Amino acid sequence: MTKPLNGPLDGIRVLELGHFIAAPYCTRLLGDLGAEVIKIEPPGGDPVRTWGAQIDGNSVWWSVHGRNKKSVVIDLKSDDARETILKLVATCDVVVENFRPGYLSRIGLDDDALRRVRPDLVIAHVSGFGQTGPDCDRAAFGVIGEAIGGLRYLTNHADGESDLPPVRVGVSIGDTVAGIYAALGVVSELLRRTKDDAPQQGGTVDVALTDSVLSLMEGLLPEYGSLGHVRQPTGSRIPTAAPTNAYPCKDGKWVLIAANSEPLFHRLTDLIGLPELAEDPRFAGNGNRVANVEVLDAAIAGWTRRHTAEEADRLCSDAGIPSTLVYTAKECAESEQFRARGMVREIDDPIIGKTLHPGIVPQTSGGQDGIRWTGPAVGAHTDEVLRELAGKGAEPPEDAMKSCGCSAAAVSHSDNSREQRASP
Amino acid sequence: MTKPLNGPLDGIRVLELGHFIAAPYCTRLLGDLGAEVIKIEPPGGDPVRTWGAQIDGNSVWWSVHGRNKKSVVIDLKSDDARETILKLVATCDVVVENFRPGYLSRIGLDDDALRRVRPDLVIAHVSGFGQTGPDCDRAAFGVIGEAIGGLRYLTNHADGESDLPPVRVGVSIGDTVAGIYAALGVVSELLRRTKDDAPQQGGTVDVALTDSVLSLMEGLLPEYGSLGHVRQPTGSRIPTAAPTNAYPCKDGKWVLIAANSEPLFHRLTDLIGLPELAEDPRFAGNGNRVANVEVLDAAIAGWTRRHTAEEADRLCSDAGIPSTLVYTAKECAESEQFRARGMVREIDDPIIGKTLHPGIVPQTSGGQDGIRWTGPAVGAHTDEVLRELAGKGAEPPEDAMKSCGCSAAAVSHSDNSREQRASP
Repeated sequence: MTKPLNGPLDGIRVLELGHFIAAPYCTRLLGDLGAEVIKIEPPGGDPVRTWGAQIDGNSVWWSVHGRNKKSVVIDLKSDDARETILKLVATCDVVVENFRPGYLSRIGLDDDALRRVRPDLVIAHVSGFGQTGPDCDRAAFGVIGEAIGGLRYLTNHADGESDLPPVRVGVSIGDTVAGIYAALGVVSELLRRTKDDAPQQGGTVDVALTDSVLSLMEGLLPEYGSLGHVRQPTGSRIPTAAPTNAYPCKDGKWVLIAANSEPLFHRLTDLIGLPELAEDPRFAGNGNRVANVEVLDAAIAGWTRRHTAEEADRLCSDAGIPSTLVYTAKECAESEQFRARGMVREIDDPIIGKTLHPGIVPQTSGGQDGIRWTGPAVGAHTDEVLRELAGKGAEPPEDAMKSCGCSAAAVSHSDNSREQRASP
Repeated sequence: MTKPLNGPLDGIRVLELGHFIAAPYCTRLLGDLGAEVIKIEPPGGDPVRTWGAQIDGNSVWWSVHGRNKKSVVIDLKSDDARETILKLVATCDVVVENFRPGYLSRIGLDDDALRRVRPDLVIAHVSGFGQTGPDCDRAAFGVIGEAIGGLRYLTNHADGESDLPPVRVGVSIGDTVAGIYAALGVVSELLRRTKDDAPQQGGTVDVALTDSVLSLMEGLLPEYGSLGHVRQPTGSRIPTAAPTNAYPCKDGKWVLIAANSEPLFHRLTDLIGLPELAEDPRFAGNGNRVANVEVLDAAIAGWTRRHTAEEADRLCSDAGIPSTLVYTAKECAESEQFRARGMVREIDDPIIGKTLHPGIVPQTSGGQDGIRWTGPAVGAHTDEVLRELAGKGAEPPEDAMKSCGCSAAAVSHSDNSREQRASP
């Protein structure tokens, strides 16, 4: 008889020594996939708890960012924090952290110390520049790492089109991508440790935000290395395919059209009433279309400007041409497709009330319902986790709990939150 | 005695039925981590082989995108393709595919058929909209999925600042993020399958490009769900932190400065000779600085305009304030940090010659050298893989090889490529 699983990572216990975005995003994914995640927070909580829109001082983003995690308050600067952390580590398969490199060593929690209490521990370090190299001590925020990885330069209008600064990708893409890579590294090392011929010792994962961004840059490095080409920004276009762009509509909105294959291009020239373009040598094949993209895009824009974005999108769609409106939060939230896939879920959060969460990515057949509870109050699970720990070890519970700086009353939310289930 | 591993996924065999970016990016990561990846290509090869800058008709991007993979040519439309694919699947742990949902079923390669020959197979489907829901049949290109996931709307200047279309993120971010998520799903299901109490059957992973993008959107959904807020683009700024922006310099370049903590803000106001700003109630605390960001950014820009970007970056750096230039391919390629971490590697590709590759992300202690060979010629491994297959099964090799449409001569590159090693 097989018990139902929370997900493919059911049974894996993860300690998060993280804050802000990258490491907590990694553990959010591990938790979404069924792992038990214990997040260590300072008495004031992770700063993300106050970022962005709030209800009664609680960031609504936290509902998602902290979901499926147990919040345990331990002040790492307190005298007995090290001992408590090491006792917890002994019960865990994984530690994920994103302090400045060297900080954990300074408080006696270097890799060796962690492995002494748990030899098969998988340790993931997430940082701006990585654990090695001349810049590893530099502080890095996401925007810095994204620029160093090459993404900021390319996310811009073509040279001369605009005097405005290059835009930031609208979310902390460097942090989240580093978080996903860290999760991949963690699970890969967990898998390696199961092999018969592998040493039964834990692996170490070292993910840098800068490295993570650079890894995404397609032909950027080989094009420079082979040909000396410095890849340039192309605004709303794709440098290697045409036509594909955001086109202006008569209601001031934009419609995205991607018709960069032969059959799609023919359908589009029919739709916009310019079938002669499909026979024009300037637009014969993707290479010629890219070379003459300004003329081509102007012709397409001549058609889109006669329609609202919604009309243009529907007409393209009816003609079998990939197109879309530019979705805002409203269209994302109302999307039937996202709802049908459980990617937009109505959640009743005990702290902020009814809200919406994104679902689980990747979706797997491992059997999880995914969102077990929402981002808990600071220290909501301190009592539960440390009492359980005391029960396992030789020390009395009072000893282990001195460092938590948090009363047992805080656990009441934990009980609520564990009953919290996602709407189907 | 433990043999050295190629990486944590050493010993895992992966069949790629993929093309373009998302599924091949997933298998690139699995290969980088040590898995054996067999890529099935049509006789003409994956279209990416001709995308972007080329040398003698070979895309230099392919050197990276196809690395560590074995290229086996099988025309899926041929009569005996199904039989050959199923024989290959029987030898594999994982199949990764990104055809339009339903295509593999139509050619007799649905999940059930694959599992009949390999019950513990992990199958990853990557698609624009996912395998379920009303839109699952829609064609999706990356730009469509990025807009539907909410990213395109936010990657833009603030309302009224520019009449230009919202820029595309400079790389196919939706595809690559979906690829990383698919790799995470695959490895998670491989781990689940090792558990004593889990059924020894394979799992299925369903990754949509649209879902992958939506998952990154931070507070977008809960802010709309709780408060009706529709998150708006903020150009080069971060909506929740200040000061952090791209600031104009006297040489026409930009310098990124991220000084959005109290100590950093104080260092910055000292550096720019305006210490009184640190005492100004308009800039007391991050919340006030965000509310008055235009005045604050103008003051900082007044200082950056008096320096070249390089000077401003160095002055910030000397003062311990996170800052950077906006890296192009050149700065990425020359970065001492990237070189020291093996993230920029000099590679001698047998097809395109000397070039540069990005290194491995995530870096793990699992012992790989990472880049075993560069993107091979079409069909370079057809002979090797199908002969080995014939050796394992009851069928003579001629039978299995009829569908490959590729001569044994093509294998010569394989021998070269397997000798190819990354420079340290």
